[in-house]
Amino acid sequence: MDIADFSKRINQTISTLSFGDNPPELYEPIRYIMQLGGKRIRPLLTLLAAHLFADELDHVLLPAVGTEVFHNFSLLHDDIMDKAPLRRGKPTVHEKWNQNIAILSGDVMLVRAYEFFLGVETSKLRKVLTLFSHTAAQVCEGQQFDMNYESSQQVRISDYLHMITLKTAVLLGFSLELGAILNNASENDALLLKNFGINIGIAFQLRDDLLDVYGDSEKFGKQVGGDILADKKTFLLLTALEQATPAQKEVLLKFKSQTVYLPEQKIAEVTAIYDQLQVKAQTQEKINFYFEEAIQSLHAVHAPNERKELLENLALDLMARES
Amino acid sequence: MDIADFSKRINQTISTLSFGDNPPELYEPIRYIMQLGGKRIRPLLTLLAAHLFADELDHVLLPAVGTEVFHNFSLLHDDIMDKAPLRRGKPTVHEKWNQNIAILSGDVMLVRAYEFFLGVETSKLRKVLTLFSHTAAQVCEGQQFDMNYESSQQVRISDYLHMITLKTAVLLGFSLELGAILNNASENDALLLKNFGINIGIAFQLRDDLLDVYGDSEKFGKQVGGDILADKKTFLLLTALEQATPAQKEVLLKFKSQTVYLPEQKIAEVTAIYDQLQVKAQTQEKINFYFEEAIQSLHAVHAPNERKELLENLALDLMARES
Repeated sequence: MDIADFSKRINQTISTLSFGDNPPELYEPIRYIMQLGGKRIRPLLTLLAAHLFADELDHVLLPAVGTEVFHNFSLLHDDIMDKAPLRRGKPTVHEKWNQNIAILSGDVMLVRAYEFFLGVETSKLRKVLTLFSHTAAQVCEGQQFDMNYESSQQVRISDYLHMITLKTAVLLGFSLELGAILNNASENDALLLKNFGINIGIAFQLRDDLLDVYGDSEKFGKQVGGDILADKKTFLLLTALEQATPAQKEVLLKFKSQTVYLPEQKIAEVTAIYDQLQVKAQTQEKINFYFEEAIQSLHAVHAPNERKELLENLALDLMARES
Repeated sequence: MDIADFSKRINQTISTLSFGDNPPELYEPIRYIMQLGGKRIRPLLTLLAAHLFADELDHVLLPAVGTEVFHNFSLLHDDIMDKAPLRRGKPTVHEKWNQNIAILSGDVMLVRAYEFFLGVETSKLRKVLTLFSHTAAQVCEGQQFDMNYESSQQVRISDYLHMITLKTAVLLGFSLELGAILNNASENDALLLKNFGINIGIAFQLRDDLLDVYGDSEKFGKQVGGDILADKKTFLLLTALEQATPAQKEVLLKFKSQTVYLPEQKIAEVTAIYDQLQVKAQTQEKINFYFEEAIQSLHAVHAPNERKELLENLALDLMARES
C-alpha cells in the first residue's frame, strides 16, 4: 500500500456520504464544501496512524472522515468571520448562499462530525469523544485568539505559537491519536503520534508564513506578500518586531498610519527589514526544530519501520510543498 | 419533592458550571447567556422523567443540563440569524460583543453540550449521543425551514406544524426520553414520554401564536399583534389564509404592498378576519388536541401516579401561563 491507496479509500468514502436532504438549503452547502477537495490530510493521518498497528482499516474510515468534516465545518464558520470571498478558488458558502445558511449548515456539520465517531466500539467511545470534544474546543479557542491578535499590539511570539497550536496543530494531533486508539496502540504510542501531529502542524503553519514572503509566487499559488499587506501578525513579523532597531520598527509600522501607499513598496520595505534581521533563516530554523521534534516522536513509536516511513514521507511531502 | 425542589437542584448545578476561561471573549458570552435565566424547562423535564422510574437523580443532573446548554446555543445562533437585539430583556450576545464572537462562542457551546453527555454510563452512551445528535440536527432543520417560510408564499399548515415540531418540540421530547433512559425505563415508556414532550411542545408553540393576538398584553409581556405586524406565518395566519374568501384574503395580504400604514389598523383588520373565520376557536381546538395527545401518552407510562402528576401539573402550568 502506498499513500495513494489510502487517499483513494478516503475519497471513496467521502464521495458516498449523505449528510441529509431536507431542507436542501441546509445540506447542499455541506456537500458543496466537502466536495471542494483539498488533500484530506487529517483522515489520511488517521488511516496511516491506524495502519501502524494493524492491517484492518474499515472501522477507521468513518471516524477518520469525521475529522475532515469537523475541519470543513471550522473552515465554513471561519470564512464567515474572516469575510473570505473564496475557498479553494470557489465562492465561500456565505457568498454562494448567505450568511444565515452558512452559520446553520456549519452547525449541522458539527453535529454530523460527532455522528461519524458514534460507530466506534463501545469501550473506546467515551475516550474518543472526550478527546474530540477537547480538540474541537481548542480549535475554537485558537480562532478566537487569532481574531483577538488582529487588533492587539501586544502579541508575543509565544502567544502566536500557542494560537497556531490550537487553531491548526491539535486537530492534526487528534487525527493521529485517533487512528492509534482505533487500532489498539499503547497509550504511549498514541501520545507520541499526537505529538508528531502537533509538531508537524506547527512546522507546517510556520512554513506557510515563510512562503508568503519568500515563496515562488507561481508555485505558491498566492500573491507573495499577502500577509505583509494584510498586516498579519505572522511568525516573521513578530520576530522582526521583537528584534528591530527603533528605525527598523518605524519602517515596519509606518504603513499602518498611511492610507495611501504602493503595495509593492510596502512588501519591498518590510521584506528588506526581514532580510536585515535574517528572519528567513530564523524561521527556517524554527521550522526545522518542530519538524525534528515530530520525526523524533514518530521514530519512538513501536511499529514497523516501513509503515512509519509512509507517515514520515507524507510529512516530508507536506514540508516540501510550495503551494 | 415538588417541582421547586427539582428546579433548585438544576439551578444549583447550572450556577457551578465552568465552560472554560481563556480566551475570555469565547467563554464570557456562554456564562452570560446561561445566566439570563429562563424556566429551565428542558432539564426539569429530564429530571421529572427520570424521577418516574427511580429516586436516584445525581447522575441525571449533568446530562439534563446538557439539553439546556444546547437550547441556549440554538438561541444564541438564532438571535444572530434573526438580528434580534434582545433576549430575555437583555442585549443578545452579538449585540453585547459582536457577531464573530457570537458565532464562535455558540460553536463552543455546542461542543460543551456534547461533553455534558459524556458522563453517561458506557452501556447507554451511544444511544444517548445518537438521539441527541439526531435531535440537534432536527432543531437546525426547523430553524432553516422557519427562515425559508419567511419568504415563501406556499406554506401549508402541515408545513408549519412540521417546522415547529423540529424547531421546538423534538428537544422537549428528547429531554424526557433522556431522563427515562437514564433511569432504566422500558423502551415503550421512554417513547411515550418522548411523545408527551413533542405534543406538549407543539401545543405550547400554538398557544404562543394564539397569545400574540388574543393575549392580555400586560400579562403576555409582549406587544399584542407583534406576529401580525411582522407578517409571521403563524398557525393563525395560515389557517385564515386557507379559509378566507377572496375578499378576506385581500385584506390579509394588502398590507404587504403598502409601505405606510398604521400598525393598530393592520392589527385590527387582520384580527377582524381572524374573528370572522373563528380562528381563535380553531387554534384552541388544535391546542387541546395536542395537549390531550400528550396527556394520554403520559397516562400510559408505567410509573407511580403521584410522580406522573408532577409532569402533568408542569404541563398544565405551561399551558396556563400568559407570558
